[in-house]
Amino acid sequence: MWTNQARIQRDIEELAKFNATPGQGLTRFSLTAEDRAARGYLRQEMHNCGLRVYEDAAGNLVGRREGEQADAPVVMIGSHFDSVKGGGNFDGPAGVSAALETARVLHERDIKTRFPIEVVAMIEEEGARFSASLYGSRAMAGLIDTAQLQERKDAAGISMYEALRQFGFNPDEIAAARRMPGSVKAFLELHIEQGPILEAEGLEVGIVQEIVGIHDMKIKINGRQGHAGTIPMHLRADALNAAAKMIVRIAELAVEEGEGTVATVGWLSVKPGGFNIIPGEVEFSVDIRSGKRQHVDNVSRRIGEALQEISSSTGVVAELSSLMNVPPVRMAESIVDRQLSICERLGLKHRLMQSGAGHDAMVMAGVAEVGLVFVPSLDGRSHCPEEWTDYAQLQKGVEVYLHTVLELAEAES
Amino acid sequence: MWTNQARIQRDIEELAKFNATPGQGLTRFSLTAEDRAARGYLRQEMHNCGLRVYEDAAGNLVGRREGEQADAPVVMIGSHFDSVKGGGNFDGPAGVSAALETARVLHERDIKTRFPIEVVAMIEEEGARFSASLYGSRAMAGLIDTAQLQERKDAAGISMYEALRQFGFNPDEIAAARRMPGSVKAFLELHIEQGPILEAEGLEVGIVQEIVGIHDMKIKINGRQGHAGTIPMHLRADALNAAAKMIVRIAELAVEEGEGTVATVGWLSVKPGGFNIIPGEVEFSVDIRSGKRQHVDNVSRRIGEALQEISSSTGVVAELSSLMNVPPVRMAESIVDRQLSICERLGLKHRLMQSGAGHDAMVMAGVAEVGLVFVPSLDGRSHCPEEWTDYAQLQKGVEVYLHTVLELAEAES
Repeated sequence: MWTNQARIQRDIEELAKFNATPGQGLTRFSLTAEDRAARGYLRQEMHNCGLRVYEDAAGNLVGRREGEQADAPVVMIGSHFDSVKGGGNFDGPAGVSAALETARVLHERDIKTRFPIEVVAMIEEEGARFSASLYGSRAMAGLIDTAQLQERKDAAGISMYEALRQFGFNPDEIAAARRMPGSVKAFLELHIEQGPILEAEGLEVGIVQEIVGIHDMKIKINGRQGHAGTIPMHLRADALNAAAKMIVRIAELAVEEGEGTVATVGWLSVKPGGFNIIPGEVEFSVDIRSGKRQHVDNVSRRIGEALQEISSSTGVVAELSSLMNVPPVRMAESIVDRQLSICERLGLKHRLMQSGAGHDAMVMAGVAEVGLVFVPSLDGRSHCPEEWTDYAQLQKGVEVYLHTVLELAEAES
Repeated sequence: MWTNQARIQRDIEELAKFNATPGQGLTRFSLTAEDRAARGYLRQEMHNCGLRVYEDAAGNLVGRREGEQADAPVVMIGSHFDSVKGGGNFDGPAGVSAALETARVLHERDIKTRFPIEVVAMIEEEGARFSASLYGSRAMAGLIDTAQLQERKDAAGISMYEALRQFGFNPDEIAAARRMPGSVKAFLELHIEQGPILEAEGLEVGIVQEIVGIHDMKIKINGRQGHAGTIPMHLRADALNAAAKMIVRIAELAVEEGEGTVATVGWLSVKPGGFNIIPGEVEFSVDIRSGKRQHVDNVSRRIGEALQEISSSTGVVAELSSLMNVPPVRMAESIVDRQLSICERLGLKHRLMQSGAGHDAMVMAGVAEVGLVFVPSLDGRSHCPEEWTDYAQLQKGVEVYLHTVLELAEAES
């Protein structure tokens, strides 16, 4: 193989050190001290393989390698380097390392390509700090404006606008991060599967055909706060009781919809949160996913209906707001075909599959042809400290990735 | 009337200034800057009416007035001055003011009593900081040891032991806070009703006959954390989904038990708490109350059974721990009789009633004969910023309270 397992392992292990919660999984939120430290490592690695390093107006880190043809559109390769709270070392960094390793191989073999290549390390893909999932790629797709930056705030009330400015970026120039139509030839991403399929089937590489659609919403329930001892059960309007009924119902609705539709309530806040106080206000998130848009829409609609029923039966007032609604996205057929041939040529056990997780490639599909390579996740686990992919497995995915890039960028051999 | 409405109003309004969340209700947690500032006010007021001020080993503030008889047991009067998070100005302070106003009347009228009187201002009755409800009185009843102080921690992980020490107390001497059997003649408390009964019936004063039993527990659910998009619904062990089922069931169990039994889930925490992460761990509180011990026990037992059922059907592992289990407590009949006579003599509209909220008087019943006077709560609300009792109404309760103290302490007329 052309790629080097030790270098890939080093990327993953070094990036894992920039972590706000050592011993409790990896937490690297966007525009924090950990983010800055990770950029330092990535910048150095990019320099070392001859890339010209810059940051775009959105805060994404980019390393550029020129092509032979003047003014040719760029082949973009990479993934994100932010993480969820208490997550693992591979979700994001595996794809950043794949792109870096690709650039290293090109550099050490002195391979010239017709099209320029940009290694990109994106931020806020998880949305863990600002609830702005897929932010880096959305900025590249021209979907972020300054109003959104001011609206999205972290738990401490700091807006993304403010955080970007404090970090040294100019959020007023966010529009400059947009990649114009025709300027990007392709976007290629490698990612861990984050599910149990490849492992269960004893496969080495997954070629993604489709990424599920995702609808994220927030539900706020206002009840009547009061003393836990003095208000009879039938006179209560308990915001948490109503929320609990909704949470049970939301899971049932996903199951009823079927065909792999999933719905998750991952975040919930209770106010005021005292043992002896009937909750007056509860907010929680809802995340709905399916390979078919219709399933996402059905579940979304039925959640709205259930919320009305439960509100009127429990005496609370509820508010539902839609935060993000991305339709399912298909990868470019021509890239999928190339990836399949490469897997066969390399003798790797592979399959076509669907991605249940959203990825920057999903958003980049609005800008360019996209491709996505999956590597197996141990026990199907992700977004947790136990997240793991054997480095030998990871390297096989990177090898497929590298050869796809060589073809797309038209390497001269 | 002997009492002075303006002075009572001033107590309430001055104490309301020592607040960590101005504009969002009153938040005065134990052993904080707000606690210290409130002590400053109370200490000065105690001094002004000739009380000798000291703090016991538990951190309760006491003002003592000697009686005529040497070595006579003390008549203790007072309530707590800590609050819930985002609560009101009257829960606790109304009773501290009643005791202070009683001492002021004794002082200005130069009334001698046979028994000494101690005005007490207790902390951590609400348990809002350390989950150690009724702490001040439990320390007086000899129910707190240093192990418990080390175990109970606030949200920042600071133990009560550490907080007491940092505040200037010596937690190793906690046993010294105990009031020995025979050393307390009676404990008298005034409190707002925190429920809708007195207001609904157009009454001025409630004489409490019985305080409900309270069982506080914490339930911890461990599920399997994972990515919100890649784990099919039927393979999940979602800790929040299991918790939601329990929360719905807990309310149903209280309703099924009937006879005014209530159960409340007021606090809940989700980990890791990301929009796109299946929750791996959820903890929540349960508070069960009834005037009959049997009802509390039945609901507690059925919660345990439901937890087992829901755990096995959802694949989570649950743990239930009992934090506090106080049986219903009857007030001393002799004190209740005195209070009824006084209400009649003063021409106040009154009734006998049950308290749905726990009070320090409940714990002090293990040490002495106890009495508890209620004043009406506007709209029955409490533990919220809207908590209110008209000062004229409050004064009537304080007047009944004062005359009860005069009788119990055997004032010389």
